[in-house]
Amino acid sequence: MNNTIKHQLNHRSIREFTEEPLTEEERQTLLAVANQTATSTGMQMYSIIRITDLEKRKAIAKVCGQEYAARATELWIYVVDCFRNGTIAREQGVDIPAISDEDRFFQGFTDGALAAQNVTVAAESMGLGAVYFGSILNDAEKIIEILELPELTFPIVGQGIGHPNQEPQLKPRMPLEYKVFENTYKVFDNYLEEMKEYDKELNTYYDLRDANRRVDTFTDQVVGKLKADLPKRAQLIKIAEGQGFTFSNK
Amino acid sequence: MNNTIKHQLNHRSIREFTEEPLTEEERQTLLAVANQTATSTGMQMYSIIRITDLEKRKAIAKVCGQEYAARATELWIYVVDCFRNGTIAREQGVDIPAISDEDRFFQGFTDGALAAQNVTVAAESMGLGAVYFGSILNDAEKIIEILELPELTFPIVGQGIGHPNQEPQLKPRMPLEYKVFENTYKVFDNYLEEMKEYDKELNTYYDLRDANRRVDTFTDQVVGKLKADLPKRAQLIKIAEGQGFTFSNK
Repeated sequence: MNNTIKHQLNHRSIREFTEEPLTEEERQTLLAVANQTATSTGMQMYSIIRITDLEKRKAIAKVCGQEYAARATELWIYVVDCFRNGTIAREQGVDIPAISDEDRFFQGFTDGALAAQNVTVAAESMGLGAVYFGSILNDAEKIIEILELPELTFPIVGQGIGHPNQEPQLKPRMPLEYKVFENTYKVFDNYLEEMKEYDKELNTYYDLRDANRRVDTFTDQVVGKLKADLPKRAQLIKIAEGQGFTFSNK
Repeated sequence: MNNTIKHQLNHRSIREFTEEPLTEEERQTLLAVANQTATSTGMQMYSIIRITDLEKRKAIAKVCGQEYAARATELWIYVVDCFRNGTIAREQGVDIPAISDEDRFFQGFTDGALAAQNVTVAAESMGLGAVYFGSILNDAEKIIEILELPELTFPIVGQGIGHPNQEPQLKPRMPLEYKVFENTYKVFDNYLEEMKEYDKELNTYYDLRDANRRVDTFTDQVVGKLKADLPKRAQLIKIAEGQGFTFSNK
């Protein structure tokens, strides 16, 4: 097994970092990796905002509900960026509504997510750790305000990077047979039955991680997460409309 | 520079593969990497459909408008999958509408995109090549039909993997200064002016790639891509509604 895959199979989110900063060279390497990531039809419709300002970090961490976001050595926010190419077209006298459509939106969203994962792998290969902050979307409007995002841009995901100051256990995933299928989607008769072993495995993981906290199974968590009350997370498309994107369902 | 990063900085899409298949071990390694990818709140809301059936491959390649998709050694389609967890909740007597909301949709979309990029990096580290097929979304409804996707699932991106049978040149990206900012988004005064060097660089790249084809600049391509007529790509949200997802903007 090569080193890349060894690191990938060993992936865990790192939420606590030492005070050692990244070198300028390390940061530039990670950004060069982001830049070389595959991009839909070469259009590169994403941008990265690096957050160094402490007040902004705190405001973002508040949206996330994760105070450690403010303390991440590097804190990067990936955003859909159709503003840049839209402006490039307009400067050539071309004003095509397609720049704001959901095709472009999803191209940018995918571009940014691919780049983020490429950076995570690169960071881990260098002995750094990383964590995603999907929680920036708890209040996308607030993130847009903090980052002063122009029209036709939209936050995708945040990412913390730094030197690990913890060694969390590997978190088990459900067996591949439930998520990898051949030719057509496979529906199982009884998922609760199928997940029993995985439930046990995850239960043990939580128990080992912190014996004082409530231990959980996967199937319990599925229900628990659905009950979480984060109303603005269910308004992403409406907020994206506020950024000038147009969607086909109305 | 470590090997992981060397491969990442050397990324190019590989569209032509030799006839050598992946070994079962290679395939299982790639899938294990996919499975260990970070996933939003542990919910693992994506699935992968591996396409081996020749008729299905041809039908997918037709949607893509890229006949080489049918010939890719491995052809994998990543899909948002809220069906699995929705069923797990329902089997426990819990029927929560949140399972179909756009929060879940985007969590699954991000999960799947991150997994896809993790697999691309793993494949390249093993000496394999990979290519994305964003073009499966040229007709998402057709893809849904071919893969027999149930409600609350939706295609994200396709991926071809195999032993490279070509050595394409590295495709230049725009300089990082136009896509990486600090604390707030940076708007430039004149993008056409800013992109002049990059336009030249991309022009040279196309010229070297195929002296007989029309050479292009980035800023020309931006306009060209916006004029492309692929109407179903701008209906993704409407098609996702047909799969049972609900969106906040109506």
